[in-house]
Amino acid sequence: MTATVSASISPAQVSHRVVPIDLPLATGTRSYDIVIGDKLLAETGKLIAGRLGQRRCLIITDSNVAPLYQKRLEAVLASAGHAVLPALVVAGGEGSKDFASLQKLLDQILASGVDRKTLILALGGGVVGDLAGVAASLAMRGLDFVQIPTTLLAQVDSSVGGKTGINTAAGKNTVGAFYQPRLVVGDVSLLDSLPHRELVAGYAEVVKYGLIKDAPFFGWCRTNGARLLNGDREAQIYAVGVSCEHKAKIVASDERETGERALLNLGHTFGHALETVTGYGQLLMHGEAVAIGTVMAFKLSARLGFCPHAEVYDVHDHLAEVGLPTAPPKFAYNIDQLITLMTQDKKAEGGKLTLILARGIGQAFVSRDVSAKEVRALWEDTLSA
Amino acid sequence: MTATVSASISPAQVSHRVVPIDLPLATGTRSYDIVIGDKLLAETGKLIAGRLGQRRCLIITDSNVAPLYQKRLEAVLASAGHAVLPALVVAGGEGSKDFASLQKLLDQILASGVDRKTLILALGGGVVGDLAGVAASLAMRGLDFVQIPTTLLAQVDSSVGGKTGINTAAGKNTVGAFYQPRLVVGDVSLLDSLPHRELVAGYAEVVKYGLIKDAPFFGWCRTNGARLLNGDREAQIYAVGVSCEHKAKIVASDERETGERALLNLGHTFGHALETVTGYGQLLMHGEAVAIGTVMAFKLSARLGFCPHAEVYDVHDHLAEVGLPTAPPKFAYNIDQLITLMTQDKKAEGGKLTLILARGIGQAFVSRDVSAKEVRALWEDTLSA
Repeated sequence: MTATVSASISPAQVSHRVVPIDLPLATGTRSYDIVIGDKLLAETGKLIAGRLGQRRCLIITDSNVAPLYQKRLEAVLASAGHAVLPALVVAGGEGSKDFASLQKLLDQILASGVDRKTLILALGGGVVGDLAGVAASLAMRGLDFVQIPTTLLAQVDSSVGGKTGINTAAGKNTVGAFYQPRLVVGDVSLLDSLPHRELVAGYAEVVKYGLIKDAPFFGWCRTNGARLLNGDREAQIYAVGVSCEHKAKIVASDERETGERALLNLGHTFGHALETVTGYGQLLMHGEAVAIGTVMAFKLSARLGFCPHAEVYDVHDHLAEVGLPTAPPKFAYNIDQLITLMTQDKKAEGGKLTLILARGIGQAFVSRDVSAKEVRALWEDTLSA
Repeated sequence: MTATVSASISPAQVSHRVVPIDLPLATGTRSYDIVIGDKLLAETGKLIAGRLGQRRCLIITDSNVAPLYQKRLEAVLASAGHAVLPALVVAGGEGSKDFASLQKLLDQILASGVDRKTLILALGGGVVGDLAGVAASLAMRGLDFVQIPTTLLAQVDSSVGGKTGINTAAGKNTVGAFYQPRLVVGDVSLLDSLPHRELVAGYAEVVKYGLIKDAPFFGWCRTNGARLLNGDREAQIYAVGVSCEHKAKIVASDERETGERALLNLGHTFGHALETVTGYGQLLMHGEAVAIGTVMAFKLSARLGFCPHAEVYDVHDHLAEVGLPTAPPKFAYNIDQLITLMTQDKKAEGGKLTLILARGIGQAFVSRDVSAKEVRALWEDTLSA
């Protein structure tokens, strides 16, 4: 299986696609590829050797993923001529994104036999990618790293774009770095080991790209979303590829989120407020919160006269159809608290909030003057429905 | 007093100089200025406003520097229209460059009322600059920061070039980032509060630039070094300016130290070994260790036939003349340990060490095949002398 460069977005028969990401600005040292395909884990040793040369490799993974893929990855790396250091395994779950885990991981990395040329491989979902990314950025003032995301959410979102982070008392991802990987390997066959609920939750971030800037892709999702979620490889490769292409373009134009990158927060300001009050637990997964928040953002856009009501229904119906929640789960919400969280999330000024709204499907924009009153009314209607 | 851009190196009457540093590569977002002059602290509010706009400012300093300059800096910032958050004061000394201090500082920064536009001001010597630099790079994925170095060592070396770091069990500066400041304010009048021994130690890094690549500047040092150390402002501004220009050029050509930047380690591989065994304490300051290491590097260069012996004496005599040590202090050294530390410092391969040697004054080069045997012989002679 050889890599082919495909920059165009077409639902052709692709078993494998490469999305080049070019960052001329902030971390602008280099471009890197996001390679997407079926059974790519088996190719990872060669993909790395071809792009980055033979390296000493240090795998960082978590206790959920290690039993599934660690030994396979080690074997694949060794057979491509890389030296493989003993893998480091962190505890699964968001709890590992804290300062104590970061310090422990850095001490382990530095004691593991790394040198300045060693490659860190983050094998796992968003937690592993975020934590290993911060650690890679700091160990010896920065080691090269490769993302091998094992969840749909990580494949289409968190593994691309260089945001790394841990959580502190001040909030989620308040400590971290913009630190780009050297390569992202998106093997859709790894999604088979994902609980169905988590796969569906990740799909909310796929739909998001269509809603932000690609109405035809939203159309494709309506036709093919169920197929993707049922494990169709072609649909998965296509959707992950399109998602990564959009994210790569947005990140390349605005790595540090001073402008366009904010569009990626569609649905997230509402969603983060819900995640925070519900405790980031099993009641509401991140992608589910994004789905709910996206519906709310479209509703608000329609109420404010930006977006036709019919398109709100289109968004709502597709998310509901694949099994995503479109309204908050039952919980003792406090609307004041939700609004306070939203204003902290993106800085309010004089009773106005900054939110991502839409003029229609594929036409998201940043609005900096949404009145808190309108947002309150929306929460009231949403929670009483 | 207005800033003037001066890129040429001439010992003219300058009361103020600006060294532009241009980083097109790794962190290549931006260029920044190193402004050097007399009584610049009083201008700092305006220097920041002119380059970076009016900002919310958070000063990070240490318990030694705070009583001397914190209130003056706060007043100067406020009078230029900046909002000044309550300063954060870390304990003075190398002990603050650890993980616990970093975590505490980050928690304090995040709780202090910063937003993404807040400017971190590192007011102090190398410890404050290194620690505040790591913290600035990580808080909210990177806040802009300004270096206001208060030691000669920091003014000519550690504040320029974006290396930040803390120490771990694995060694000094093993955790950190390449993170460039937005501005460096080098006020030579702050050097008046420095203990004379520390001023002299910092001067070793000034001489280093002459020895690496600027023989005429070494000549200037021989003539003017004593004047500089006696507090002559013109000499201080000139020497700090030339040093920063050299460092800026080297860093711009090789930010991540894959090539030329290694030349800045002249004297440092020997010096670090001495610092480590003597415990980084009062017995041997960093600049003193560099002075001893520089003499050793020149001696070795002469023994290996690269450099005329007469130039070794020139180096030795100038360092000795200003009061720097040129041989290690009395201590129960173990040569095996010293050599082991040197090989860890810069990776040995097959009994060969990488060291910075010189073909003469102003002609340093990286040698990757110095035999451990030669280095051992040099240590034996040096320690038995």
